[in-house]
Amino acid sequence: MLVERFPENPLITPKDVKPSRSDYQVVGAFNAGTAIYNDEIILLLRVAERPVDKKDDEELAPIYNHATGQIDCLRIKLDDPDLEPLDSRVFHYKKKLYLTSISHLRIARSKDGVNFIVDEKPTILPEKDYENFGLEDPRISKIGDTYYICYKVVSDKGVCTGLMTTSDFKSFERKGIIFCPENIDVVMFPEKIDGMFYALTRPVPMLIGPRGVWTASSPDTINWGRHKPLILPREGMFDGGKTGGSCVPIKTEDGWLEIYHGSDENDKYSLAAALLDLKDPSKVIARSKEPLMYPQANYEVKGFYGNVVFSCGAITKDNGEVIIYYGASDELTAAAKTTIDKIMSTLK
Amino acid sequence: MLVERFPENPLITPKDVKPSRSDYQVVGAFNAGTAIYNDEIILLLRVAERPVDKKDDEELAPIYNHATGQIDCLRIKLDDPDLEPLDSRVFHYKKKLYLTSISHLRIARSKDGVNFIVDEKPTILPEKDYENFGLEDPRISKIGDTYYICYKVVSDKGVCTGLMTTSDFKSFERKGIIFCPENIDVVMFPEKIDGMFYALTRPVPMLIGPRGVWTASSPDTINWGRHKPLILPREGMFDGGKTGGSCVPIKTEDGWLEIYHGSDENDKYSLAAALLDLKDPSKVIARSKEPLMYPQANYEVKGFYGNVVFSCGAITKDNGEVIIYYGASDELTAAAKTTIDKIMSTLK
Repeated sequence: MLVERFPENPLITPKDVKPSRSDYQVVGAFNAGTAIYNDEIILLLRVAERPVDKKDDEELAPIYNHATGQIDCLRIKLDDPDLEPLDSRVFHYKKKLYLTSISHLRIARSKDGVNFIVDEKPTILPEKDYENFGLEDPRISKIGDTYYICYKVVSDKGVCTGLMTTSDFKSFERKGIIFCPENIDVVMFPEKIDGMFYALTRPVPMLIGPRGVWTASSPDTINWGRHKPLILPREGMFDGGKTGGSCVPIKTEDGWLEIYHGSDENDKYSLAAALLDLKDPSKVIARSKEPLMYPQANYEVKGFYGNVVFSCGAITKDNGEVIIYYGASDELTAAAKTTIDKIMSTLK
Repeated sequence: MLVERFPENPLITPKDVKPSRSDYQVVGAFNAGTAIYNDEIILLLRVAERPVDKKDDEELAPIYNHATGQIDCLRIKLDDPDLEPLDSRVFHYKKKLYLTSISHLRIARSKDGVNFIVDEKPTILPEKDYENFGLEDPRISKIGDTYYICYKVVSDKGVCTGLMTTSDFKSFERKGIIFCPENIDVVMFPEKIDGMFYALTRPVPMLIGPRGVWTASSPDTINWGRHKPLILPREGMFDGGKTGGSCVPIKTEDGWLEIYHGSDENDKYSLAAALLDLKDPSKVIARSKEPLMYPQANYEVKGFYGNVVFSCGAITKDNGEVIIYYGASDELTAAAKTTIDKIMSTLK
């Protein structure tokens, strides 16, 4: 068996998370970035919320208002001719896309990696005008003593990637937008390579080209260049639809081991691996022929947006054990255990 | 009158340009970057070509083959069920977008700015795998003694922006992809501002957000960050569809004067102006209420892709005169004379 799901799964569900305000409900606690800090495993959860009083005859989009600092709510009756419902996550109104929930980031802590205590309050709420649809899907890379958090910035101006840093998971410093629209699933490598920082990025082009993983490098984590395509979708395979970086690459003797996500033509999201050159991670050495993990458990197949296993972080132990934390069905947080050797065995 | 079209227009047409090979024909000579070098006005033209033997019952796409160094040609019969013709520029085949021509860059030279001699041979041909659909729409910014050329990189991997530099318009050095897909119409400012290089960019997001002008800054022209939205489309106006940077910003006492392009809901492309803060060009001081110039002349209204005036560069004289070189209908090169004062008069 390539991966063993934790028998305690799901580890965190929306009901384990206190809403940020009394008139809101939590609809998702998933896609967490991972870090080890002060001997604890930290999950930086994406917590998706919406107003409790959503009516059955409406779609709604909670939108942060930068001018007032409050969250407003766009409510559209289902019979409005300008409304085009799409799926549980999004709808079109007057040809513009809106989200049915707004996400913030929140810490959950654990000593054993299984039992997590979720902070009572949000850790990072939307604050900038470019975050008015929320903050999502963080990846945490520790470089030196600094934790770099790449997060999905969502606003009416575009979906892109912001950077923030912390050294204590108490104070966080925003560093602005590091990849402009449309670019998501950005994961920084955990050390400099030949004097440069590296990241996996996922451009989302409108007209030409696949939605797949590219690389970029940077002298300072703020400014990025040398963009190159890297792990692109493979037609007809489990990752023939889209690919995106998931976990922070794991350094091995054989190369950087990246656990990435790939979706197929039915938008089923699996996890798989790619091995990248140690000295030049813009070169792929090998890629999984079959997924490492795909939606099988009930909570992965059904839920807010079913048929999704989507990781934003793993914890690697010195003995080669890898715990993959992942979002299931855009709703829950679960975990699965594997090893570097088992992941390597999936590579061509 | 805000602008005066040159009576000699069009200045350059496809028949003025020798094809790069005998079995090809030139279908467009347009969207030229501009520079002054050795007392000559240089236009770095986008030259679009396709095979002469295109049949009436087919669509074709010339594609550079990086492995062989040759241009291959994809030919699709019009009755192929996988073909979806779109417009004169592009078609869909098996749900992927292809271009009906392939572009290279070529120098045209003039002493008087009116009469141009087009080089016999291409200046810059597709050479990299990421250029296999061609090179397009260059903008040239002179900073110090170096000319920085931002050009549209088009390939099956995506549409994005590459950088090359030259100091003599003979040898050119490629600097890689500076903005990843999908990002076009990149224009660098002609000097550093507060120690940083600046550029206008035009993200093309798939899901959320307008197709409008953003800014970015860079310590070194290779790595870019601090992305911010800047000159976005204005609903219901002449630039309500898309906006993009056109000319290299002109430094004035009142701010950076940018001649940008905007399209409306019918994809009619006009030129207009924005004034940006001298010390912080991520701030807009004013914008044209009405276009500076819109398709009126016969060669602007009709042609390969009609209803387009699209500039990639202007020449500013010490007396405040501005010559805007522009592509008309994605086919020809024309010019129009105006002044900084007249452009300023369009600003709110």
